Amino acid sequence: MELSITEKKEKGTRPEDAKLAFGTTFTDHMFNMDYSIDKGWHNPRIEPFANLVLSPATMMLHYGQGIFEGLKAYKTETGEIRLYRPRDNFKRLNKSAKGLCIPTIDIDFIMESLKTLLRLEKNWIPETPGTSLYIRPTVIATDPYLGVRASHTYRFFIILSPVGAYYSAGFNPVNIWISKDHVRAVRGGIGEFKTPGNYAASLFASEQAKKEGYAQVLWLDGIERKYIEEVGAMNIFFCINDEVVTPKLNGSILPGITRDSVLTLAKRWGMKVSERKISIDELIKAHGDGTLKEAFGSGTAAVISPVGEMRYGDKVLTIADGKTGPVAMKLNKAITDIQYGKAEDTEAWIEKV
Amino acid sequence: MELSITEKKEKGTRPEDAKLAFGTTFTDHMFNMDYSIDKGWHNPRIEPFANLVLSPATMMLHYGQGIFEGLKAYKTETGEIRLYRPRDNFKRLNKSAKGLCIPTIDIDFIMESLKTLLRLEKNWIPETPGTSLYIRPTVIATDPYLGVRASHTYRFFIILSPVGAYYSAGFNPVNIWISKDHVRAVRGGIGEFKTPGNYAASLFASEQAKKEGYAQVLWLDGIERKYIEEVGAMNIFFCINDEVVTPKLNGSILPGITRDSVLTLAKRWGMKVSERKISIDELIKAHGDGTLKEAFGSGTAAVISPVGEMRYGDKVLTIADGKTGPVAMKLNKAITDIQYGKAEDTEAWIEKV
Ligand SMILES: Cc1ncc(COP(=O)(O)O)c(C=O)c1O
Ligand SMILES: Cc1ncc(COP(=O)(O)O)c(C=O)c1O
Repeated sequence: MELSITEKKEKGTRPEDAKLAFGTTFTDHMFNMDYSIDKGWHNPRIEPFANLVLSPATMMLHYGQGIFEGLKAYKTETGEIRLYRPRDNFKRLNKSAKGLCIPTIDIDFIMESLKTLLRLEKNWIPETPGTSLYIRPTVIATDPYLGVRASHTYRFFIILSPVGAYYSAGFNPVNIWISKDHVRAVRGGIGEFKTPGNYAASLFASEQAKKEGYAQVLWLDGIERKYIEEVGAMNIFFCINDEVVTPKLNGSILPGITRDSVLTLAKRWGMKVSERKISIDELIKAHGDGTLKEAFGSGTAAVISPVGEMRYGDKVLTIADGKTGPVAMKLNKAITDIQYGKAEDTEAWIEKV
Repeated sequence: MELSITEKKEKGTRPEDAKLAFGTTFTDHMFNMDYSIDKGWHNPRIEPFANLVLSPATMMLHYGQGIFEGLKAYKTETGEIRLYRPRDNFKRLNKSAKGLCIPTIDIDFIMESLKTLLRLEKNWIPETPGTSLYIRPTVIATDPYLGVRASHTYRFFIILSPVGAYYSAGFNPVNIWISKDHVRAVRGGIGEFKTPGNYAASLFASEQAKKEGYAQVLWLDGIERKYIEEVGAMNIFFCINDEVVTPKLNGSILPGITRDSVLTLAKRWGMKVSERKISIDELIKAHGDGTLKEAFGSGTAAVISPVGEMRYGDKVLTIADGKTGPVAMKLNKAITDIQYGKAEDTEAWIEKV
């Protein structure tokens, strides 16, 4: 396959770094590629960022057959452009593809195409610490057909958005709401895939949480509604006594790449780390006897998000006095230092562009 | 709000009734309406059927915030156009809207708009028995934004498709596959709403079933994986001894309008009817002792779909010798006769256009 490139004539300008929000501004170009049963993936092209023209019967709009990824490109002080574990994102995209009956993509080819796109858009990558270029690879089912089945055609696209810090409050603890009534995903379902339906399922409880003043929802398992799963767009970790613990991947949790980075680093540092079931009762108890030292989320958008407060029904659990704890702090620094080229890439996580 | 109408200059032609498939051909016009926080629902318009022009960052494509409905317009022998329980569809649309944090619509206004659209498209409604005009009202989230939250803008549209019989095999029993490993929805989730994510969640098992030669999947509950829920795009009924039984609405099943029609008619006819939990073990036992007389699905697409065979792991349950049973036959005739104006509309289900 040969990548074709059509450059935009009049280039746009990147907003000032200080004014960047999350996911609202897009760069001049995007990557597009089509799939049909006859041709497989074909016509890969970089072209000016443009609207999609879709039949109102497009299957994605009716049956939600789609998948996506989220990763970032970082610019170092010396102007180098770096991707953080990008192949892991494309591996996860291919896993999501299988789960949603979508044809997989060739990771090497996509990596090369993404790098070409990033080189073209290098002026769109902001430089201020904490900022980055968010990369959103997406696949949507495009058959204009109203019966329920896997589509025969797809569009794959990558769009880029220069982003500021995810939480406008900065690296300050967030408050999270534990949903008693709503469930995001269940064993045997699509929770472990990055597919739009999971986020649709999260909206009602998220809006409820927002009304109560909480930034995100912490989900419990769909069966017993007792075991911690993950947060809206992050995996979750707790420091209980001297143990760093996170829910085991069970089929209904997204296998986060930041989660994996946290586990790897914490082990490397000789910390006691475990992936296991964690019940809400265990957390309440640990909070009560003072052994719940920290809680934090992990995800591409915010890297590490300390949790200052968790609410479960009438119970409000304040954690680490509502401040950022040392483990969250250390992990955030270690990961962002690798991303921005301030520390050695001991784990071979970085791919230079 | 005033409905504006822009007529298409060159009208298309409807395919021959005998060549109609399901959901592939669309009529000349569609209904469109937009929502913004400032204006609410606004700019309702009938205009030529046209592609949607959407930013690749459109929230529906990433976070699946959308809902839809499916209903039909029928033409009687005397050329009258009839809708079947359309207000129930729009009530369900509004329930789905609430579940997905989408602003609800004014049912009276939409009913009038739909009727205007149908009058304009009356030549698109096929006449042969079994054919009809399928109506697909849809709402999609349209903010071009990559953060997870409820959108601030939406598009509502209605598209129309002349359709033949849903099952190309006609009113012949279908074979269904009971999924042991996959789950469509769970209590506390979005299963009771008509939203794309539920159909995305059904694809993997459906493709698996197809490979094994089964037309659709019968879902079990997500918690114990023991109780019958529904079929891909139908609710399910069993005749056990002299009881007509269907799973109780529990939050994870779509509350089908045909389901409600079946319950209403069967009760009216003095049959013993119940909505309750039905376990797969009960069905296997009833099949074994010969008391499982019939099984059939209910839904807008096919009205009543007799089930000839159900497969659960290694077990194959043949039902009513793989033929259509008398209860399925009687219900199908009663409902379609009301739809096509061949029987009196005793339940006030018909709304004339
Ligand atoms: C539901 C969900 N869980 C967890 C994560 C964290 O995954 P990652 O660390 O790969 O960004 C994300 C965000 O990507 C997510 O959307
Ligand atoms: C998941 C699901 N269940 C049941 C039904 C049947 O509902 P109705 O009878 O309203 O068409 C449908 C189809 O509309 C469906 O998609």
